[in-house]
Amino acid sequence: MQIEDLGEFPLIEQLLAQIGRSGPGVAVGAGDDAAALIPTPGMLLLATCDSQTEGRHFRRDHISPEQLGRRLAAVNLSDIAAMGGQPRWALVSLHLPPATEASYIEAVYRGLMRELEPFSARIVGGNMAAGDQLVLDLTLLGEIAPAELLGRTGAHADDLVLVSGSLGASAAGRAALAEGLSSPEAQATIEAHLTPRARVALGRAIAKTGLATAMIDVSDGFAQDLGHICDASRVGVRINAADLPLAAETHAVAHTVGADPLQWALTGGEDYELILTAPREAAGDLARIAERELGLALTPVGTILESKAERWLEDANAERTPLGTGGWSHFGSISPLT
Amino acid sequence: MQIEDLGEFPLIEQLLAQIGRSGPGVAVGAGDDAAALIPTPGMLLLATCDSQTEGRHFRRDHISPEQLGRRLAAVNLSDIAAMGGQPRWALVSLHLPPATEASYIEAVYRGLMRELEPFSARIVGGNMAAGDQLVLDLTLLGEIAPAELLGRTGAHADDLVLVSGSLGASAAGRAALAEGLSSPEAQATIEAHLTPRARVALGRAIAKTGLATAMIDVSDGFAQDLGHICDASRVGVRINAADLPLAAETHAVAHTVGADPLQWALTGGEDYELILTAPREAAGDLARIAERELGLALTPVGTILESKAERWLEDANAERTPLGTGGWSHFGSISPLT
Repeated sequence: MQIEDLGEFPLIEQLLAQIGRSGPGVAVGAGDDAAALIPTPGMLLLATCDSQTEGRHFRRDHISPEQLGRRLAAVNLSDIAAMGGQPRWALVSLHLPPATEASYIEAVYRGLMRELEPFSARIVGGNMAAGDQLVLDLTLLGEIAPAELLGRTGAHADDLVLVSGSLGASAAGRAALAEGLSSPEAQATIEAHLTPRARVALGRAIAKTGLATAMIDVSDGFAQDLGHICDASRVGVRINAADLPLAAETHAVAHTVGADPLQWALTGGEDYELILTAPREAAGDLARIAERELGLALTPVGTILESKAERWLEDANAERTPLGTGGWSHFGSISPLT
Repeated sequence: MQIEDLGEFPLIEQLLAQIGRSGPGVAVGAGDDAAALIPTPGMLLLATCDSQTEGRHFRRDHISPEQLGRRLAAVNLSDIAAMGGQPRWALVSLHLPPATEASYIEAVYRGLMRELEPFSARIVGGNMAAGDQLVLDLTLLGEIAPAELLGRTGAHADDLVLVSGSLGASAAGRAALAEGLSSPEAQATIEAHLTPRARVALGRAIAKTGLATAMIDVSDGFAQDLGHICDASRVGVRINAADLPLAAETHAVAHTVGADPLQWALTGGEDYELILTAPREAAGDLARIAERELGLALTPVGTILESKAERWLEDANAERTPLGTGGWSHFGSISPLT
C-alpha cells in the first residue's frame, strides 16, 4: 500500500513493531519525543550523519530497498569505524514521495537492521516527512575509550600510509551498472558498489593497538580523503602507484569499459576502506593483526612527508605527478549517476 | 556565489569557521569523520531528529534563511524540552539544489546557532548532499538525569491536563501568510509560525519538580499529540473547550479570514507548546513555577479519564463531542502549504 493511502502513523506503528523499542543501552527507544540512551561510563560519544539521495547516490532500478538500507547503514558505520569506534544507536530521517510503497520502507529498515545487528546497534528514533525525492538520512552514534580515539591530525613525517582491502571496486561497479555488464567480475564490483562493507571490526582492532597515528575512510576518493589527513596533520605524502591494491575484478571491468583502473582507485570514492598512517616499525604489526584477526589485507602504499606542499603520486620509474584531489563532488557538473 | 560554483569543500570550510570546532563537552568537533563528545557522568543521553522541507514546512518567499535555521532548531529543541532535557549537541544534514547561494546556507547556520546558543548547545557535525529540493535535517542530542526524565506513559486517571502559552497561533500565522495579511495581529501570528520558541526552560523547570506524570510537545496538533499521551498511558481524556488558551491575535486573524480558531487550537499544530499531565494537587505549584520563573502561563484544560475509550471535547453547556485526532499529516492530501 502507498504511504499516502496507508497514512503516516500506521506506517510508523509498523516500523516500531519491526525495530522494537528496547535494546542495549536503551532506556526509552523509538516512539517518544526523543530516545533516552545510557552511555557507557568513561567513554566518548561519537556522532555522525550521512545520507542517500535518489538520483545522486542510487537509482531505484539498480538497488533493492534492502540493499539501500544496508548501504545507508554502511556509509555511516564507516565513519564510526574511521574513528576506531563501536556503533551503538541510530536515528533514521526519511523524506518520501507520498506514492512510495510502505513495503519499500519496511525493506529499507530490514537492510538497516541487518547491517547494524552484528554490532548490537539499534534504531532508536527517527522522523518521516513527505518530499519530492527519496532522501534517507541516518545519524549514527557510537562510543570509544578516550585513549583509543583516532582522528586525522596525528600523521607524522616518515609514517607509512596503509589502506585496507582494495580500491576502485565501487567505481568499477558503478560503471558496470551503467553499461549493463553481467560477467561474474562485473557482478562482484556491483556488489561492492551497492553494499559496501564498513570496516568496523578493523577500525576497532587498529584503535586498540594504539599504533596508528591517523585514520579516515574512503568515501569521496582515496586521494581526496588522504588529502584530508594531510591537511589536518599539516604534512605531505608520496604514494607509490604500483602499490595501490586493486582487485582483479576491478581490472577486468576497467578493461571491458576502457577505463583507467588507477584513476578509479585514486578518485572513484565510495570504497569505504580505511586509510591509516602509522610509524614504519608498527606497520608490520598492524598488517599482521588485520590479516590474522580479520583476514583483511592492510597494504603499505606510501610515506608521509614533512612538507605539506608535497603530495606526489610516484610511478614505477620514480616519476612523480601531483596527487590531485579529484574525487566525488556533490555539486560538480559531473555526478556518477547523471 | 552558488554552491555549484563555489564547491562543496570551500563551503564546508566557511561553515566550520562559522560554527567553530570546540565547545562544552566537545572533544572533537565538526570536521572529522565523526564528532567525539564527552557525556556528563550519570546522565541519560537524549536523541531526536526533525526536518524542514521546502514546499512542505516552509516556502522560501515566506521565511528568511535565518528564520529557517531558527525554526529548524526550535522544532528539535521542542522534542528535547518535551522530555525535560538540556540540549547539548547538534548535527546538520543538508540536501541542497546546486543553485543554492552559499550565503543562504550561512544564514541558515546563523539562525541555528542563535537558537542553540542560549543553551550553550553546539553544532558538532553534519553532512551536505545535492538534492532537487531544499531539505534540512537536524539531529539534536541532549542530556537529563534519569530521575527527571518525562515520557508519555505516566498519565493517570484524574490527573489534570495543562498546556503552556497559547494554541493555534501557528495555524493563524500560516493563514495570515497565505492571505497576505499585514495587520499587527497577523504579524504576531506570522512570527509565531515562522520562529516558534521551544519551551526548553519550562520543560527543565517542570522536570526538576518531579510533579508531572507525562509530557509532549504540540507539533502535529494539540488533539493528536494529547492522543499520543493517552495511547501510551492507556487512559482517556476530557478537554474543556472554553479553557483552551488562545491569544487575542489568533482570534483576530480567525475573524479576518473567517476560520474557526478553536479548530486551529485543536488541530493546527506547530505551536511547540508543552502539554503535560500532573496530579490535581500539583497543578497549582506547576503553574506558579511557570509564571514566576518564566512568565509563562500553564493553563489547566481538562482531566485524564480512566477509560481509554473516552476522549471528549466538552463545551460550555457540558455537551460532549469526540476529540478527533485530526492534525498535521505529512502524507494526507491536504498540506498547509499546497
